[in-house]
Amino acid sequence: MARSPFEWIDEQARARSKAGLVRTLRPRPADSALLDLAGNDYLGLARHPEVTEGAARAARTWGGGATGSRLVSGSTELHAELEHELAEFCGFESALVFSSGYAANLAAVTALAPHGSLIVSDAGNHASLIDGCRLARGTTQVVAHADPDAVRKALDTRTGPAIVVSDTVFSVDGDAAPLTALAAACRDAGEAGQSGRPGAALVLDDAHGLGVIGDGGRGAAWAAGLAGAPDVVTTVTLSKSLGSQGGAVLGPAHVIEHLVNAARTFIFDTGLAPAAAGAALAALRLLRGEPERAARARAVATALYERLTAEGLEAVRPDAAVVSVRAPSPEQALRWAAECRAAGLAVGCFRPPSVPDGISRLRLTARADLTDGQVDRAVGVIIEARR
Amino acid sequence: MARSPFEWIDEQARARSKAGLVRTLRPRPADSALLDLAGNDYLGLARHPEVTEGAARAARTWGGGATGSRLVSGSTELHAELEHELAEFCGFESALVFSSGYAANLAAVTALAPHGSLIVSDAGNHASLIDGCRLARGTTQVVAHADPDAVRKALDTRTGPAIVVSDTVFSVDGDAAPLTALAAACRDAGEAGQSGRPGAALVLDDAHGLGVIGDGGRGAAWAAGLAGAPDVVTTVTLSKSLGSQGGAVLGPAHVIEHLVNAARTFIFDTGLAPAAAGAALAALRLLRGEPERAARARAVATALYERLTAEGLEAVRPDAAVVSVRAPSPEQALRWAAECRAAGLAVGCFRPPSVPDGISRLRLTARADLTDGQVDRAVGVIIEARR
Repeated sequence: MARSPFEWIDEQARARSKAGLVRTLRPRPADSALLDLAGNDYLGLARHPEVTEGAARAARTWGGGATGSRLVSGSTELHAELEHELAEFCGFESALVFSSGYAANLAAVTALAPHGSLIVSDAGNHASLIDGCRLARGTTQVVAHADPDAVRKALDTRTGPAIVVSDTVFSVDGDAAPLTALAAACRDAGEAGQSGRPGAALVLDDAHGLGVIGDGGRGAAWAAGLAGAPDVVTTVTLSKSLGSQGGAVLGPAHVIEHLVNAARTFIFDTGLAPAAAGAALAALRLLRGEPERAARARAVATALYERLTAEGLEAVRPDAAVVSVRAPSPEQALRWAAECRAAGLAVGCFRPPSVPDGISRLRLTARADLTDGQVDRAVGVIIEARR
Repeated sequence: MARSPFEWIDEQARARSKAGLVRTLRPRPADSALLDLAGNDYLGLARHPEVTEGAARAARTWGGGATGSRLVSGSTELHAELEHELAEFCGFESALVFSSGYAANLAAVTALAPHGSLIVSDAGNHASLIDGCRLARGTTQVVAHADPDAVRKALDTRTGPAIVVSDTVFSVDGDAAPLTALAAACRDAGEAGQSGRPGAALVLDDAHGLGVIGDGGRGAAWAAGLAGAPDVVTTVTLSKSLGSQGGAVLGPAHVIEHLVNAARTFIFDTGLAPAAAGAALAALRLLRGEPERAARARAVATALYERLTAEGLEAVRPDAAVVSVRAPSPEQALRWAAECRAAGLAVGCFRPPSVPDGISRLRLTARADLTDGQVDRAVGVIIEARR
């Protein structure tokens, strides 16, 4: 009997176990008494009857799947409708829907950073943007987190086209990127006139901004006055505020047409399932009709932050719906989260290697549909569980 | 006014236009008189009422989206049920569901090819496997298409762990990989005994095999006697035979646990939408109850091939449900496909850069639910449209 080709996996598993970093799946029931501050359903729409009916109706009308690539049989009128309404809501000329936000980010970065180009990437960017940089033919320069001066310096080194890539709200700490300064850095990198060299393009991942930031949840680019600009591209996810699955890239029409022709995760992937498109479209229409949901999500996040820091916890002031609370160690973060769960509260627990700086955290997510009483209860449980 | 950072995109667009290679989206209505030989709904299940009701019921029960990463809030009991039944059906110990087959392939290749390892990759592999190779920390050696001797030679050069990566049925030509010979090459690369070096692992993408190949559609690994082997990992998609969206990796339990801990497209992606999981589960149960669907899809493909080649067309003998017919040029392929469409038949049209060898093709897909009369009609239209 020869040795297993996967022996190295077992060695890694032993090391993980020793370090207390083993991850296991814990499938949840459909209904639970747990108060959920772990998911990314920021507007509380994932189980809204209009959203689930939107999914059900789309499945019945269009089928369980899209049946093929968007370029073959996988583009339905439902996809086109969703793309039209998303672009309009967020203030962009055009939109393209993908099977996930991950796929949308891979597409945007790889298709907009050809051979000979420079990608300037924030050190705190999401894994999907990092993987986009790795896959792209351009050269990546990682710069310090939220540092427009570092971006300017990096852009000075370019010799061809350049893009600056950043989350708008960072997933781990919930802090916002300095969008106005980033856009200025991109534009200042250009030289005026038709003989000068072009500026850099700004590529933003608004996964945590859409539905939460900006006028009625129109997103971080809208809030910064950058929506629809000829040099700005934004990606969004349909799986957080819109309570569904999928992602989209928003930008000028010629950029979106370029993605249709060049983005591998668009061309070689099956189109988004009709049910997911239907759910996202229903959620988008709800948000348009009830713009106060966005402000409520932000208010709940601020309340959580203020109450927890008043109790002496170390947290980052939230710019959107994510509230990040520091834990002393991975083990203590895990124990803390388990104590919360035992007391009826689900919170996220981020540990290495999922955190860029090695610091473990409880990650709380605000939801627009949380009552003040539920916020009280959550704060009480978190404080109590820390002891 | 400075120049646009996207000028290079407009240049590429002009070049594409000149070469006749522009791709445009053509959103389809829910119901169409077109006979569809373009989609990948091989078993005709995407619009089966049990599948669409599976999607609708899951959305109502679980919500429009999974609300978070599978490791935070995104694992439901429905995901676990689907994983259990998929693994059992395909004959593997364990399964892990992803938001797409693309994501599953990125996960399998990157997580199983660490720094210092060798990836041996077939030249005809799908874009998602190629992107997996590019993202992985291991070194990739691309070998000639369907050439086990080339795989053996490549494996001779390895100094650490190695994986051999191949589609089971290639997307463009519909030909099958030589699985038995590939598995032998992997195993022969090992040395007997506990002191010898391990063999290579075989990583298969069964996107076009599941539901079509093997006893009742159990897939290509099952058909080759490789299902459940300790050194074989298979990925599948839920978006073709199972009429839904999503993907899965199947393999030994310790490999799946490794993916849960190490695969970035699992850890950092939102879990598959409940509706997609529900649709796929319903389709899987239908297939289990009606195993003859798999044989019928193959028989339709063979009939298409035999009838078209008898008329003098150049096609590849199909090993599953994909029938690839050569076209003289991209322009003629496009015209041929348009003529078919005008006559009521939707066929795929594969042109550069989506084909590895630069040869344009009509790509036909057989479906288990096509009647003999529909096959007659399709053949008639294709022959007529060629003139």
